[in-house]
Amino acid sequence: MSSNGNSCGIAIIGCGTVGSAVAALLQNEKPLLQTKCTVQLNLRSIVDIDLSKAEQSGLDKSLFESDYNKAINNANVHIIVELVGGTTLAKQIIEKALKAHKHVVTANKALLAHHGNELLALARKNGVCICFEASCAGGIPIIRALYDGLIANRIDALFGIVNGTCNYILTAMTGEGTSYQQALKGAQAKGFAEADPTLDVNGEDSAHKLAILAALAFSQKINYDSIQREGIDNLQLCDVAYGQELGYVVKLLAIAKREGNGITLSVKPAFISKAHPLAWVGGPFNAISVYSHKTGHTMYYGRGAGADPTASAVAADIIDVALGTALQKFNTLKLWPDLNSMTDPLPVKECNSRFYIRVMALDKPGVLAKIAAVLGKFDISINSVLQKEVSSTTQDQKGVPVVITTHNAPESNVIKALKEADALDVITDKSVCIRIINEHEEYSRQSSW
Amino acid sequence: MSSNGNSCGIAIIGCGTVGSAVAALLQNEKPLLQTKCTVQLNLRSIVDIDLSKAEQSGLDKSLFESDYNKAINNANVHIIVELVGGTTLAKQIIEKALKAHKHVVTANKALLAHHGNELLALARKNGVCICFEASCAGGIPIIRALYDGLIANRIDALFGIVNGTCNYILTAMTGEGTSYQQALKGAQAKGFAEADPTLDVNGEDSAHKLAILAALAFSQKINYDSIQREGIDNLQLCDVAYGQELGYVVKLLAIAKREGNGITLSVKPAFISKAHPLAWVGGPFNAISVYSHKTGHTMYYGRGAGADPTASAVAADIIDVALGTALQKFNTLKLWPDLNSMTDPLPVKECNSRFYIRVMALDKPGVLAKIAAVLGKFDISINSVLQKEVSSTTQDQKGVPVVITTHNAPESNVIKALKEADALDVITDKSVCIRIINEHEEYSRQSSW
Repeated sequence: MSSNGNSCGIAIIGCGTVGSAVAALLQNEKPLLQTKCTVQLNLRSIVDIDLSKAEQSGLDKSLFESDYNKAINNANVHIIVELVGGTTLAKQIIEKALKAHKHVVTANKALLAHHGNELLALARKNGVCICFEASCAGGIPIIRALYDGLIANRIDALFGIVNGTCNYILTAMTGEGTSYQQALKGAQAKGFAEADPTLDVNGEDSAHKLAILAALAFSQKINYDSIQREGIDNLQLCDVAYGQELGYVVKLLAIAKREGNGITLSVKPAFISKAHPLAWVGGPFNAISVYSHKTGHTMYYGRGAGADPTASAVAADIIDVALGTALQKFNTLKLWPDLNSMTDPLPVKECNSRFYIRVMALDKPGVLAKIAAVLGKFDISINSVLQKEVSSTTQDQKGVPVVITTHNAPESNVIKALKEADALDVITDKSVCIRIINEHEEYSRQSSW
Repeated sequence: MSSNGNSCGIAIIGCGTVGSAVAALLQNEKPLLQTKCTVQLNLRSIVDIDLSKAEQSGLDKSLFESDYNKAINNANVHIIVELVGGTTLAKQIIEKALKAHKHVVTANKALLAHHGNELLALARKNGVCICFEASCAGGIPIIRALYDGLIANRIDALFGIVNGTCNYILTAMTGEGTSYQQALKGAQAKGFAEADPTLDVNGEDSAHKLAILAALAFSQKINYDSIQREGIDNLQLCDVAYGQELGYVVKLLAIAKREGNGITLSVKPAFISKAHPLAWVGGPFNAISVYSHKTGHTMYYGRGAGADPTASAVAADIIDVALGTALQKFNTLKLWPDLNSMTDPLPVKECNSRFYIRVMALDKPGVLAKIAAVLGKFDISINSVLQKEVSSTTQDQKGVPVVITTHNAPESNVIKALKEADALDVITDKSVCIRIINEHEEYSRQSSW
């Protein structure tokens, strides 16, 4: 790929936390990288309009530049590393780079979730490739697992904890019994949550990653807007605790699953059995469980964010491009989404699941019978009921909590039933409904794929 | 790599459980593989002296052959898949294949652990490559993680549960309180242990895998004989139970660690905190925790054995070779052990660790003081003591159990201390000593690497 085949020029555009970590890795770890790989990686330029972070990180000032066009047009630059973020300027930079026949390495999940297909196609048209290991789950090599390690499999389902902020908050709510608001403050204090955590806690960040992962897992274009999304920001501590009592741990799960002939995509808080390895993923860690038809269940665990883990993933991509293997895989594999058709997502509401339901009801005879009757009307079978004795705390609340877990039922029925239940005169507050994820069958043969 | 660059001929030599699963995958999953990859994978021959398994699996009889030389000399065969196992015939086959300029894909951990370096060098000399994802941890893409996903890292430590038989037995002992012998029978009944389980339960199989993993993790030649090895066959149920009481789970851990300027390699039963993700790896599953200097802790979990998971790994290698990317990485990376020097392993006995110690002592005053005095003499600091009231069961035993956990201490000191303690007149039976593995520091900078 380079002029002499043995060296490769790199420009980093966007030098914030991750950008400066990537630059530092390339600059300071040359001896290590040279023990691993014959190709010389030469950092040629570091581009940003604000280079204060680069300066603080002790990066080589002679490489600083403010105009990304210079880097793109530099004949000695073969790889553009886009770490600007966002979907506007970053998109322009990548498009320009590809048109200039530069390979692109990016960690930009939002951009790929929304415009990945057209960017991959543009790369292909220009004989270069785009690598994006760092876009999902930081330092965990999950993208490689999907296009490489698991390539001989039909992937049936993917369950991901892919947002460290949310997992940190949920771990605190579960383990320490802190409220959502307290846990969020704790996460911010420890640097695991942004000052404005909206994109993390509302599930959007997880949905971006799910779009990318599902596209590779199922060799399909994914319509980002088809992902059903619900954040953790409305989660109440009492539900976390009742779930625990029933043997479940709450996680924000990004789920992609073959069902029938379609695919369902969702990001939602969900209860998962304590016996599942995902239940033990604590703090800011991420993990992705993949169920594939030959390998069965595999799980990939690690730090899903942070400067160094993300820089490790970016550097793995840089090396892959420098060796020529990334382009070769981009050209000879057919699983890249730009080469495939748009998936036809099943409405998640039509999907079957088990549910955790909490209704707040008056503490008087016949209440449970009324609620059970509504559920029965919609063919929802009850698996367990948990009704606590009224304590001085719960008396202050509007009614007493009745916690019900169901057997498998269509989500649409549950929604209708709860609407009707909430209208009962014995119900004192809006009900809460959280999916319970059953252990996925390891080797389901349900699909015709 | 093939004559027209778009198709690749494959011969499978050794058609037992794994061989027939690989053949079935290549034969029956063509439509799936064609959605993933442009290169045609053509199974040209299936070689074994006993083809009954191949016949039972419904494989194409026109491909059956009994002479492996024919397959190796077939100009339409580009990849030899060696699934014979063992270190004699398999070695001959691979050597012949490499000399005939055929790429080799193998799952043969014993062969690679003992002769990997010379075989890799022979491949290199002949312009071909050897791939061995299936040699370690079956369907888990851990080999790829080490040479690809984590390539930009200095790897500091690796902790693996890499033998499903042992993990199944230990999970039964831990969860169900069954004895080693009962649990072994259960594993055999469920097909998770061979009729002769020696190589699994004595730790040899795990040590083979550790040799391969450590060679890649540390870019070093590994002397297999330098791996300290102890199996699970002497593990007593009472120690599993006492460990649990103290918050630990026993696992057969394959450990490779940088310490000072050297590397320690060992396979031993060890206690690990219930808080560590490896503690939750149950039944026949495998998992490998890797600590690397940029990514921190990553863990890879899945089925470490079984026909289909192993076939998945073999097929991933076949595709990698067929695309040309495996050879490219073999030629441009410098981390392959044949290119590096032999590691100088530190004697494990010089390493520091925490220890679980159980002594059997007379139930009379002053006993604990005597034991503590011996430990103190060897500078071993006690962390906790657990002495149970004598029950009718323990009374039948020789003495009462005193369980001690230590702070960090050199293993050599502990060995000396226990030898002296065992000679005390108050001690009624040989003491038991099991390492307690502390959570590895994620980002230790101790090493100069």
